[in-house]
Amino acid sequence: MNSNSIILTLADLCQYLKEHDNYLVLTHASPDGDTLGSAYALKLGLKKLGKKVQVICPDEIPHKYDYFIDDSECDFIPETVVAVDVADIKLLGDMWQRFEGRIDLNIDHHISNTNYAKRLYLDETASATAESVYEILDELGVEFDRNIANALYTGISTDTGCFKYANVTVRTHEIAAKLYAIGVDAADINRIMFDTKSKSRVKMEMMVLNGAEFHFDDRCMTLAVTLDIQKQTGCSKSDMEGVASMSRSVEGVLVGVAIKETEKNVFKISLRTYDPLDASEICKKLGGGGHKAAAGCTVEGSLKDAKDAILSAIKESLEEIDAGANITK
Amino acid sequence: MNSNSIILTLADLCQYLKEHDNYLVLTHASPDGDTLGSAYALKLGLKKLGKKVQVICPDEIPHKYDYFIDDSECDFIPETVVAVDVADIKLLGDMWQRFEGRIDLNIDHHISNTNYAKRLYLDETASATAESVYEILDELGVEFDRNIANALYTGISTDTGCFKYANVTVRTHEIAAKLYAIGVDAADINRIMFDTKSKSRVKMEMMVLNGAEFHFDDRCMTLAVTLDIQKQTGCSKSDMEGVASMSRSVEGVLVGVAIKETEKNVFKISLRTYDPLDASEICKKLGGGGHKAAAGCTVEGSLKDAKDAILSAIKESLEEIDAGANITK
Repeated sequence: MNSNSIILTLADLCQYLKEHDNYLVLTHASPDGDTLGSAYALKLGLKKLGKKVQVICPDEIPHKYDYFIDDSECDFIPETVVAVDVADIKLLGDMWQRFEGRIDLNIDHHISNTNYAKRLYLDETASATAESVYEILDELGVEFDRNIANALYTGISTDTGCFKYANVTVRTHEIAAKLYAIGVDAADINRIMFDTKSKSRVKMEMMVLNGAEFHFDDRCMTLAVTLDIQKQTGCSKSDMEGVASMSRSVEGVLVGVAIKETEKNVFKISLRTYDPLDASEICKKLGGGGHKAAAGCTVEGSLKDAKDAILSAIKESLEEIDAGANITK
Repeated sequence: MNSNSIILTLADLCQYLKEHDNYLVLTHASPDGDTLGSAYALKLGLKKLGKKVQVICPDEIPHKYDYFIDDSECDFIPETVVAVDVADIKLLGDMWQRFEGRIDLNIDHHISNTNYAKRLYLDETASATAESVYEILDELGVEFDRNIANALYTGISTDTGCFKYANVTVRTHEIAAKLYAIGVDAADINRIMFDTKSKSRVKMEMMVLNGAEFHFDDRCMTLAVTLDIQKQTGCSKSDMEGVASMSRSVEGVLVGVAIKETEKNVFKISLRTYDPLDASEICKKLGGGGHKAAAGCTVEGSLKDAKDAILSAIKESLEEIDAGANITK
C-alpha cells in the first residue's frame, strides 16, 4: 500500500483540479449522504468549469438520494481518479483491488485516513467531506446553484445528525447559512433523511424493543436484530441503520449495543458509548475497532455467545471506570 | 383585552430596555426550550447592563434545563413586566388573570400573537424568540458569554428540531455560528434535548406502537396514549410530548394522530400533517385549531368516540384532496 500520499493544501488541490479535465469520482461502498453528496457536488461543480465527470458508487444508491443524483451522459474516458470521503481503499468494497494504486486524489475528513492515494487533501476538522467540497468549489470560483447546495447540505446534515453532534463547528453553520442563501431545500431533505421510517422499520423497532435487555445497573442496553426479526418485518439493510443509537438514547445508558445477525450464527455488533467509556477499546478485545463513541466487531456463534462476549468486554471497562471513581473519591 | 399594542422596532425596543431598570420576565406555561432560553438569556444579558431581573415561569421548570437557569437573588420590586415567547395572555396558565392588562412588553415570534401587551416586538420571521433575543442583546452591546449562548442555543435548537424544520433561515445558521464562536455547549445540549429518553418513555412508545392503527390506504396512522398506558409505564407529561410526530414520520403517512387521555373519557387529540392536508382545518371541525402542519382538539366520550370523530373529519379532507386530484387528471 502506498502510505506516502503527497499532502495537498487547498490551493494545491484547486490547482490540480484546474489542470485536469476528465474525472472519475469514487464514493465508498454502503454509500451515505456525505460520500454521495460530496461526489455529486464535485461533479456538478466541476462540470460548470467545463470538466467531464463520472461518479461511480460501488453499491446501488438508495432512492432517497435521487434529488441530487446527476446521471447525465459521460461518453469520455476518465483520466483522473478521485475518491471522496473514502478513508481506506478497502472501503471501495468489491472495487478496491481494481483501483489499488490508481487513486490520483483523495478528498477526505477522517483522521483514520490510510494515505492510500497518490495525493491527499485531508481536513479532519471538517464535520463532513461536503464541508471541504464547499470550500473547494468556492475557491475554484464555481457559481453555486440549488442542486449543488442540496448535495452539499445532504452531506453536512447527515454526517452531523442535523447539526446535533460534537463535530459541528462555527464553519459548519457558516456554510449552512450560505447554502440557505442559495436556496437549499433543507426542510424537505431533512424530512427524507431524518423523519421518514418505513413501516418495516417501525415493526422492526417494536420487535427489537420488546426484546431489549438492561445490564450493569441499567448503564448498558442491548438490542438484537435477529435474522428471524428481519424476515418477519421485511426490513432492509438501510432499515437497520441506527439501532445502536436507539439504545444509547435511553436515560442513564452509557453504552448502547446493537447485535445484528448478518448470516446464520454471525453477529455484527455495534457499540455507541458516552464518556468515559471507550467503544473502540471494548471492541478491540473482540477483534474489532472504530472510534471512541462508536465502534464495532463481529462474533460467530449463537446470539447468546455474541451477547456474552460483548457484555463480558463491557463489564471489564465498567469495572475499570468504577475502580477509578473509587480512587478519586 | 387590549388589542392595540404599540408595535416596536428593534431600535424602539432597545431604547425601552435601556430606559428601565427592574424587570419581571414571564415565560408561558408548560415551558419549552424557547420560552425558557429566551427569558434566561434576557435576564443574563440585562444583568450585564446593570439591570435587575426576575424570571417567573407559571409551571415548574423541568430539570433538563438546569444548565442555564440563573436563580440568583432578586430582592427588588419589579417595575416592568416582559412576556417572552407568549403569543396569548392565556398561555400564562394559572397566572393570566393576575397579569391581564399589566404586561408592559411582549417579545415574540408567533404570527398568531394576540397583541395583548402594551408594547409588542414581534418578528414572525425568526425561527425562535431566542433568535430575536440574540439580536436584541447584540444591539444593546451586551458581551455574550457561554451561559447566554447556551440559553439562546437551547431556544433555537428546540424550536427548529435542531435546524431540521422549515422555519430555519440563513439568519438562524448565522446566529448559531456566532454562538459556537462564543463556546456554546451545543453537543451536550442536543444530547439532553433530543437524544435522551426516559425508560418510561421507551416503554410507553412500545405499548403505543403495539396499538398503532393505519387508515385510508395507510395515509393516516393513529396512536393512543390511554390513562392505562400512562399508569402502567409511569410516564410524565413531558414523556408524552412528540407522540403525534412519531406517527407522521412513517413513510407514506400524510396525517399522524396522537390521542392522549388527559382524564377519564377526555381525549386530547394532536394532529401532524404534510401538504396538502391542513391539520388546522380538520381540527376546527371538532372545535379545535392550530397551524397548517400541527393542530389539536379535545373530544369527550370513549376512546372509540374520539377515534371515530377525528377519523371522520380526516376522511372528509382526504376525500376533498382525492376529488381535487381527479379533477386535475
